[in-house]
Amino acid sequence: MNHHDALTAAGLTDAEITGGTLSVRSPIDGAEVAKIHETPADKMPEVIERAQKAFKQWRTVPAPQRGELVRLLGEELRNAKEELGAIVTLEAGKITSEGLGEVQEMIDICDFAVGLSRQLYGLTIASERPGHRMSETWHPMGPCGVITAFNFPVAPWSWNAALALVCGDPVIWKPSEKTPLTALVTQRIFDRALARFGADAPADLLQVVIGGADIGEALVNSRDVPVLSATGSTRMGAIVGPKVQARFGRPIMELGGNNAMIVAPSADLDMAVRAIVFSAVGTAGQRCTSLRRLIVHHSIREELTEKLKQAYASLTIGDPRTEGTLVGPLIDETARKEMASALKSAEAEGGTVHGGGDAKGVEGGVYVSPALVEMPRQTETVQTETFAPILYVMGYDTLEEAIELQNDVPQGLSSCIFTLNVREAETFLSAVGSDCGIANVNIGPSGAEIGGAFGGEKETGGGRESGSDAWKGYMRRQTSTVNYSSELPLAQGVKFDI
Amino acid sequence: MNHHDALTAAGLTDAEITGGTLSVRSPIDGAEVAKIHETPADKMPEVIERAQKAFKQWRTVPAPQRGELVRLLGEELRNAKEELGAIVTLEAGKITSEGLGEVQEMIDICDFAVGLSRQLYGLTIASERPGHRMSETWHPMGPCGVITAFNFPVAPWSWNAALALVCGDPVIWKPSEKTPLTALVTQRIFDRALARFGADAPADLLQVVIGGADIGEALVNSRDVPVLSATGSTRMGAIVGPKVQARFGRPIMELGGNNAMIVAPSADLDMAVRAIVFSAVGTAGQRCTSLRRLIVHHSIREELTEKLKQAYASLTIGDPRTEGTLVGPLIDETARKEMASALKSAEAEGGTVHGGGDAKGVEGGVYVSPALVEMPRQTETVQTETFAPILYVMGYDTLEEAIELQNDVPQGLSSCIFTLNVREAETFLSAVGSDCGIANVNIGPSGAEIGGAFGGEKETGGGRESGSDAWKGYMRRQTSTVNYSSELPLAQGVKFDI
Amino acid sequence: MNHHDALTAAGLTDAEITGGTLSVRSPIDGAEVAKIHETPADKMPEVIERAQKAFKQWRTVPAPQRGELVRLLGEELRNAKEELGAIVTLEAGKITSEGLGEVQEMIDICDFAVGLSRQLYGLTIASERPGHRMSETWHPMGPCGVITAFNFPVAPWSWNAALALVCGDPVIWKPSEKTPLTALVTQRIFDRALARFGADAPADLLQVVIGGADIGEALVNSRDVPVLSATGSTRMGAIVGPKVQARFGRPIMELGGNNAMIVAPSADLDMAVRAIVFSAVGTAGQRCTSLRRLIVHHSIREELTEKLKQAYASLTIGDPRTEGTLVGPLIDETARKEMASALKSAEAEGGTVHGGGDAKGVEGGVYVSPALVEMPRQTETVQTETFAPILYVMGYDTLEEAIELQNDVPQGLSSCIFTLNVREAETFLSAVGSDCGIANVNIGPSGAEIGGAFGGEKETGGGRESGSDAWKGYMRRQTSTVNYSSELPLAQGVKFDI
Amino acid sequence: MNHHDALTAAGLTDAEITGGTLSVRSPIDGAEVAKIHETPADKMPEVIERAQKAFKQWRTVPAPQRGELVRLLGEELRNAKEELGAIVTLEAGKITSEGLGEVQEMIDICDFAVGLSRQLYGLTIASERPGHRMSETWHPMGPCGVITAFNFPVAPWSWNAALALVCGDPVIWKPSEKTPLTALVTQRIFDRALARFGADAPADLLQVVIGGADIGEALVNSRDVPVLSATGSTRMGAIVGPKVQARFGRPIMELGGNNAMIVAPSADLDMAVRAIVFSAVGTAGQRCTSLRRLIVHHSIREELTEKLKQAYASLTIGDPRTEGTLVGPLIDETARKEMASALKSAEAEGGTVHGGGDAKGVEGGVYVSPALVEMPRQTETVQTETFAPILYVMGYDTLEEAIELQNDVPQGLSSCIFTLNVREAETFLSAVGSDCGIANVNIGPSGAEIGGAFGGEKETGGGRESGSDAWKGYMRRQTSTVNYSSELPLAQGVKFDI
Repeated sequence: MNHHDALTAAGLTDAEITGGTLSVRSPIDGAEVAKIHETPADKMPEVIERAQKAFKQWRTVPAPQRGELVRLLGEELRNAKEELGAIVTLEAGKITSEGLGEVQEMIDICDFAVGLSRQLYGLTIASERPGHRMSETWHPMGPCGVITAFNFPVAPWSWNAALALVCGDPVIWKPSEKTPLTALVTQRIFDRALARFGADAPADLLQVVIGGADIGEALVNSRDVPVLSATGSTRMGAIVGPKVQARFGRPIMELGGNNAMIVAPSADLDMAVRAIVFSAVGTAGQRCTSLRRLIVHHSIREELTEKLKQAYASLTIGDPRTEGTLVGPLIDETARKEMASALKSAEAEGGTVHGGGDAKGVEGGVYVSPALVEMPRQTETVQTETFAPILYVMGYDTLEEAIELQNDVPQGLSSCIFTLNVREAETFLSAVGSDCGIANVNIGPSGAEIGGAFGGEKETGGGRESGSDAWKGYMRRQTSTVNYSSELPLAQGVKFDI
Repeated sequence: MNHHDALTAAGLTDAEITGGTLSVRSPIDGAEVAKIHETPADKMPEVIERAQKAFKQWRTVPAPQRGELVRLLGEELRNAKEELGAIVTLEAGKITSEGLGEVQEMIDICDFAVGLSRQLYGLTIASERPGHRMSETWHPMGPCGVITAFNFPVAPWSWNAALALVCGDPVIWKPSEKTPLTALVTQRIFDRALARFGADAPADLLQVVIGGADIGEALVNSRDVPVLSATGSTRMGAIVGPKVQARFGRPIMELGGNNAMIVAPSADLDMAVRAIVFSAVGTAGQRCTSLRRLIVHHSIREELTEKLKQAYASLTIGDPRTEGTLVGPLIDETARKEMASALKSAEAEGGTVHGGGDAKGVEGGVYVSPALVEMPRQTETVQTETFAPILYVMGYDTLEEAIELQNDVPQGLSSCIFTLNVREAETFLSAVGSDCGIANVNIGPSGAEIGGAFGGEKETGGGRESGSDAWKGYMRRQTSTVNYSSELPLAQGVKFDI
Repeated sequence: MNHHDALTAAGLTDAEITGGTLSVRSPIDGAEVAKIHETPADKMPEVIERAQKAFKQWRTVPAPQRGELVRLLGEELRNAKEELGAIVTLEAGKITSEGLGEVQEMIDICDFAVGLSRQLYGLTIASERPGHRMSETWHPMGPCGVITAFNFPVAPWSWNAALALVCGDPVIWKPSEKTPLTALVTQRIFDRALARFGADAPADLLQVVIGGADIGEALVNSRDVPVLSATGSTRMGAIVGPKVQARFGRPIMELGGNNAMIVAPSADLDMAVRAIVFSAVGTAGQRCTSLRRLIVHHSIREELTEKLKQAYASLTIGDPRTEGTLVGPLIDETARKEMASALKSAEAEGGTVHGGGDAKGVEGGVYVSPALVEMPRQTETVQTETFAPILYVMGYDTLEEAIELQNDVPQGLSSCIFTLNVREAETFLSAVGSDCGIANVNIGPSGAEIGGAFGGEKETGGGRESGSDAWKGYMRRQTSTVNYSSELPLAQGVKFDI
Repeated sequence: MNHHDALTAAGLTDAEITGGTLSVRSPIDGAEVAKIHETPADKMPEVIERAQKAFKQWRTVPAPQRGELVRLLGEELRNAKEELGAIVTLEAGKITSEGLGEVQEMIDICDFAVGLSRQLYGLTIASERPGHRMSETWHPMGPCGVITAFNFPVAPWSWNAALALVCGDPVIWKPSEKTPLTALVTQRIFDRALARFGADAPADLLQVVIGGADIGEALVNSRDVPVLSATGSTRMGAIVGPKVQARFGRPIMELGGNNAMIVAPSADLDMAVRAIVFSAVGTAGQRCTSLRRLIVHHSIREELTEKLKQAYASLTIGDPRTEGTLVGPLIDETARKEMASALKSAEAEGGTVHGGGDAKGVEGGVYVSPALVEMPRQTETVQTETFAPILYVMGYDTLEEAIELQNDVPQGLSSCIFTLNVREAETFLSAVGSDCGIANVNIGPSGAEIGGAFGGEKETGGGRESGSDAWKGYMRRQTSTVNYSSELPLAQGVKFDI
C-alpha cells in the first residue's frame, strides 16, 4: 500500500494533509507524505483555556463514567488497529509487527484504565482523636499536557491519556514534529469514541497541537496545565523539568536510557542471543529501552560475541512493511550522522566496530547495518545514549563489578541480567543491584507490560507512567479529617484553652 | 529556668554553644543564647561523601533492623521530651504545650516508621506472559537532605528523618539559622539511640550542618543528594525546586500556606471560635498551617466577629514558658515589620483592623497583639501569606462562592469548613471543593495527625511527608519481570524471530 | 413478546426447553414455560473432575489473558443485554428496567475484572534478614462452585464468575430451580465469548448444573471444590457453611438481610420517600437488600407515614413487561402465604397493616399490594426476614436508640440513614453505628455499585463479593521468603548451630 | 535455676500456683510444678459478658491510642524477656534460645501492631454516581477468643492479641492445659502495660481462662465471641471450625502441617543440611512448621542422607536450659508413644529408620533421639502429621514429580526448596508450584518473620495471622455510599420513578 492510501485508509482527508507548513516525511523512503497545518503559538492560550473549561465539567462526571469513554476508545482502537499500525510504520519506520504492537499497547492500557475507573483508591485512616474520621482522597488535577517523541508516536500518549481521562484531566497533546500524522489519526479515533459516549463529555477533552518548540513551551510554562508529561531526550528534560517545577507544576518525565544487559556464565545463551538482538536492533535501536550495553562474563564473552556476529549477519534490513524485515530505517539523516560519530569516537577509545555502515541494497530511507562494538572499558561514548542500533560489548569478572558497570552511567531506565543462578538474579534485583526503574531477569530491557509502572531514575527523569499507581501522577491528594464529635481535641495532645 | 540552664539540661556543652560565628537569639527576650560553629561551605563535599559512604552500608541493613534504630530514637525522644520541648520554646518562642506537642509529633512518627519498617510494601503483579513473574519493589534512594524552617524546628525533620532512615537513606540536616540549637540537641538524642543500636549502623547516618544559604545550596545542587526535602517559604521553593529538578533530584517541598476556614450558617459557633483562635493565634500565627482567612456566611458574620473580638481580647500574651500564656513572641523584628506592613496594606484596600499592635506590658521579645481584619473582598494582601497572627475576615452568600474564595489564592496547603450540613461538608471535600492538600470539617487547618500525608498543592510545593505512602518519596521504585520459562515471548504479542 | 418467543430470541432451542423433568414457570402468569433436563446427581463427580482438569490448565494461562476472556464475555453480554434481560423478567418476574439493570451489573463486573486481571496484587515485604526477599503472591485456588437464588438469577453469578475466571478458577454453577433458564442463556453467551477467545481456554471452564438440593450438596461436600459461593437464605447458609468448613473449604455466603432505614428529623423527606418506596417495593420486596424496617424520628413519623401511604397508593402493580409497572409478581404461591402469615403475626403483635392483600385487577401470577405496617416496637416478626414487600415502621427518640434498633436483628446486610446532619451521618457510619456490611447515607439499602465489596455480617454470612479485594476469596495466598545469601540466619535472632 | 525460682522470678505467687485442680508438669523432668485454679465452665457466660462490656468501651478509644497500649505491652515484654522465656522453656521444654526467640516474636508483633494502629486502612472508591462518595471502612468486631497450643505457648497468642487489641477487640485467652503458666505470666506482663496506659482502657481487655475442652467449647459456641482463633491439630479444627461457622462466627484456624523440603541437584548442600536439621529437630520436631518430609533428587540423595546422619549423630539432646543443648524433651509420654507408633508403621511400609529411640543418658523427661526414615515412597504414614522429630526422606527425578509429592498431603502449611536454579525456584513459587501458605527458597519451612501473613491451606485451616493484612480478620468491613447531592440516581442505570 502506498503512503497516500495508508493515510486515506486511516481516515485522513486531503484537506488535512496538504496545504500546511509542516512537512512530514516517511523514513521508509524519505518521501514527503504530507504538509500539515501547525497550531499558531498565539492560539495556545485559547487551547489551554478550552482545556480548563473542559476540566471544570469533566471532573464532575463520575470516574466510572469517564472510564466508559476510555472503554469505547479501546473498542475503536481495536477496530482501527491495522490502519493506525500502518501509520506508525509509515511515519516512524517501525516494522509492521511493532507498529501493531504499539497499538496493542494502547488497547491494553485502555482496558487497564477502565478497571481503574472504579478504583482510584484513596485510604481511610485510623484517627487518633475520638469522634474523628480521617481519609485520603484523590481528585482530578486539571489539564494534562502530553509531549511525545517520534520513536513511540502513540503508545506513550495512550499511557498518559487513558489514565488522565479516567482521572478527570483533559489532555493537550503535542506530538513530535516528525510524527504528527499518527496523532491526527488517533484524534480521529478518539472522536469516534467520544461520539458514542454522548453528551456527558465536554468539548475539548483531547486537543492535538501541531508544531515545534514554541508550542511545547506554552504547555510547559502554563500554570493552567498542572501536569506535564514529556517523553524525549535528557537534554529536553533538563530544560522542561525545571520550568515546570518553577511554576509549581508536576512534571512526568520519560527521558533517555542507556540500558544494559549482564550475561552471567550460567545464562541460557541461545535465549540471551535472541533477547539481545531483539532489544538492540528492534526499532532500529531507537527505543528508549533499546539495549545499548552488553556486560558479559569473560568466560563466555568470545562465544557470545561470535553468536551475535552470526545473528547480526542474518538480519533482514529494509522496508519495514515487508514481511520478514527485522530492521527498518533510522528516522532521518541526523540519526545516521550521530551513529557514525559515535562509532568513530568508540573506535578512538579503543573499540572494535563490527557492522554499522549503510545497509546494502536498500534505497530511499536511512538504512544502516546494526553495529556491534567490542570495548576495552566503559568509555564516555558508551556512557552516552546514541539513538541508533549500536551495541557496546564489555567484559566482567565478578557480579559486583558487572553491577557497578551497569550503574555507572547517568541514565537509569532499564536493565537486565541473564543468569540461571538464584543468587545472581536476586542480587541484581536487590538494593545493591541495578539502579534502574526497570530491572529484568532473562528478558531484554525493552518491551514492558502495561501492568507495571514504566520509567526510570537519574537522567531518565524519575517519572512513572502506565501501571501500578502511576495514575496518582494525574490526581491531587487530599488528606481530610472530619470531626463529628462535639469536642475539639488537638493532635499530639496539645492544650490551648481560651 | 534560664536559657543557659535549659541548654545545659538538654545536654549542650559550653564548648558547643560559645566561640562560634552564628549568633542565636531567643525570641522570648531577644537575648543572645549561643554563638555556635558553622559548617564551612567548602566542607560540604566531604559531608555529602560521608553520607554516600554511610548509604552504601545502611542500604544493606534490613529495613526492620533500620526500624529498630528509629524505635530507639523514639524511646530517647520520650526520655528527653521535656528538655527538647524547652529548647523549642527557647529558640522558636512557642508556648510550652506546643513545644512538647512538637516533640510528641516526633515520637509519633517514630512509632509509625517502626511499623513501616516491616512493610515498605511493593507489589506483585499479574504478568501477561506465561512463566513470568512481575513485581515492583522499593529500594533505598541515597542521602536525603533536609532543610527546615524556624517555626517547626524539629517535627518536620523527624517526619523526614524517621522515614528516610527506615527507607535506608542517611540524612543531612540543615536547620534554620534561627533555630540551630534544637538541631544540635536532637543530634545528641539521636546519638544516644545510635549507641544503643550498636555496630550495624554506619557512621554519619545523621549529619547536622549549620549555616546559611551556601550550605543549603550545596545540598540543593549535589547529584549525590538524590532526595531534598525543604520546608520554608514559597520564594525559597521557587529557587530550590528547579535547581533540584535540573540535576534530576527529587524535591519534597513544604512551602507557604494561606489557609482558610469557611463558616457556614449551620456551624457550631462556639466550636468554631475555639478552632479559629487556636489556629489563627497559636504559635503567634507562624505555622505554615495557621488560619489566615475566614470566609463567613453573611448571616452569621457579625455574630461570629463579635465573639472573636471578645476571644481575642482575652488572650494572654507573653513569655511562652509561663503557664497560661497562649501567644508567645514573633520570631524577630522583621516579622513585626512585615505584619505591620500587611496590616497597612489591608487598611488601604478597605480593611478594618482590630488589634495588631504591640502587646502591652510584655518586654524583651517581639510581642504583638493578634489582628482581626474585616475585609470587603479578597484583596492582594489577603492572597499573600504573612507569617504573623493576622486573620482576614470576609463574607459570602453561597457555598460555591465561598469555595471559590477559598481556592483563589496561589497557595494550597490547608483548609476547612465548619458546618453541620452533610451536603456542604461533602461538597467541600469533593472534586469541586477545596483545592488544598488538607481539607478538614469542623477542625481548624492546623494540627495534622502524623497518620495522614502532610503537604499541599500549587505554591505549597506538592510535597508529601509523614503518613500514608509519603515514605515512597525516599525510595526508588523498581519494576521487575523475571522470566523463568524456557521461552522468550514479547509483550503486546510482538513477533521478532531471528 | 410471548414467553416462547423470548426464549427463542435468547437462543434457547426447543430441544433444551422441552422433554426434561424440571418444570419452569413464569411468575408473570404462572404458565409453565419449559421442562428442562436435570443433571443427575451421580454425574456430579464427573462434573467436578472436569472442572479440576480445566483448572490444571487454566491456572497456567496468564491472568491478563484470562481477563481477555472476561472482556469478551462483557462484550457478548452487551450484545445480548435485551434478550437476557427479558429472560430475567420472564423467569424472576422483575420489571424490564430491573431486568436490564441486572445484566448491566454483569457487564460492569466484567469491565472491573478485566482491569483486575493485570493487578491481582500481592505484596513485596521488607525482610528482617540480610540477603532475603519476602513477598506474598496470590495463586488460583481451584474450581469454584456458585449456588445462586431466584431473585437475582444472574448478577451474583457474574460477581463470582468474572472474578473466579480472572483468578484462574473454573466455575460450576447451580442456579435456583426456579430460574434455570437465565443460567442456560448465560452459558450460551459465555460460549460465544469462549469461541472468540480461542484455543488457550480449556473445556469446562463454566459448567451449569441443573437440579435440586442433591446437586448443590455435591458441590458443598467436595474437597475438589475449594471455593463455594452460596447466595440464599440464612437457613440454607446455616447448613452449607459448616459443611464446607468441615472439609476445609472456603464458603462465601450471601444470606438473609433485614435492612433498615433511619429517618432523622433533618432528612430530605421527599428524597427519603422515593428511596423508601424503591427499596421497599422494588423487585416486589424480594431483594436481599430490600428495605424491611423503617426507623423514623417521632417528630416526623406521622408526616412520613402519610406520604408513604400516598406513594404506595399510586404504585402500578402488574405485568412486569409493561412500561410503567413498578411492582411485578411474587415468585410463587408460597411467597404469598409467607407474606400473609407475617402480616397476621405483626397484627397480633400490635401492628397496624396498610395494604398487603392481593392486587386488584391483575391476573395470572401472584400479585400483591405492598404492605406498610406501623409497629409499636421491634417484635419478633419484624426481626424475621420475610421475602415480600412488607415495610415495618417504628419510631425513635434518640439516634443512639435508632442505631440500637437497627442493629438488634440477627442479620447484618444493608442499612442506611437519611439525615442532613454531619454528626448523625458520621456516627451512623462509625464503629458505634450500623453493624451491617453496607451502610449508606441518603441512599436506600439496595442497589450497590459493583466497585465496593458486597456482603454482610452476622446471619448474612460474612462473605464479600464484587469489588474491593473480594477477588482474594477466589485465590490462595502464598507467603514466600527467598534466601539469596550464603548465610542461614534464623528469624527472631534464634541461634541453632550444629 | 529451679522451677519454683523461675516461676517466682516471672512474678507468679504461691497462691496462684498451688491449691488448684490443674496439675502442670515440666517436660524437662516430668515434675509437677504447679496446681492451678481452673475457670469453672459455668462462669464462661460472665467472662464473655465482661468482654462484651469491655468491647463497647474499647471500640470508642481511637486506634492509635489502642496502639499505645500495645506499645507499652511491647516495652514490658522487653523488660520481662528473660523471665518469660524461662517459663516457655520450663513449661514447653524449648531450649533457651528458642524460648527467648518466642518472646522476641511477641515483641516484634507489638512493634508492628503499633504502626498498624495509625493505618487500619480502608479505601475510598470512585462512585459511578454524581454527588456520591463511596468508601470502605474497617471497624472493631467484638471479643476475640484465642485458643493456643502447648508448642508455641505465647507467640501465637501475641499474633492474635496485638492485632485484636489494636483493632478494638478484647481478648479471651484459653491456653493449652499443658502450658497455662506462660499465660498467667503474660497476663501479669499485660497488666503492667495496662496500668501504665491508664484509665482509658476498660477492665477485662484480656481475660485468661484456664481449663479443658468445655472452656474452649464455651468460646467456640458463643455468638458474643465473633472471632475465634484456634491453633492446634487438624482434628480439633475439624470440630471447632464448623461450630463457629454454624453460629456465623469467624474462625481463624492454624492447624496441622506436614511440611516438606525439596532438595534439588544444584542446592548448596551444607546450607541445606543446617536448615534441615534445625527445622526437623528444633523444638524436638514439635513445631507446626517442623520439617517432616525431605524430597531429594536421586543424584544427591545418598550424599545428603550421609551428611544428615552425621549431623544427627552430633546433636546434643537433653535439658533445654543447658547451653549447647539443641534438642529438648517431648511434651509428654503420649508424644513418645505416637512417635514410636509412627516409626513402626513406616517400617511396615518399607521404611528404614535411623535413630528414633530414647536418648541415652538423659533422665526425667521424655527425651528421644530424632529419627531419619528413608522411605521408598510417600505412604500413608508419611502423609500423616506426627508431632515428633521424625524426618521422612524420599527421592525424586523431575521437579514436577517433586512438587507433586510435596502437594500430595492433606495439609498445606509450609514448604521449601533448596536450589540455586532460578527456574526451579520460581516454578516452586508459582501457581503450579507448592500449594502451601508458606513457600520458601533456601530457607527451611519453620521460623517465619512476623511481617508476612502466617498460615496455610487445606487441612491447615486457611487462617492467616501476624503480618500483611491479617488484621482484617479482627475487624468488620463496612461499604458505605454517601449521597450528598439532591438527586437519587440508582446504580446500573435502573429507572424507578414514583
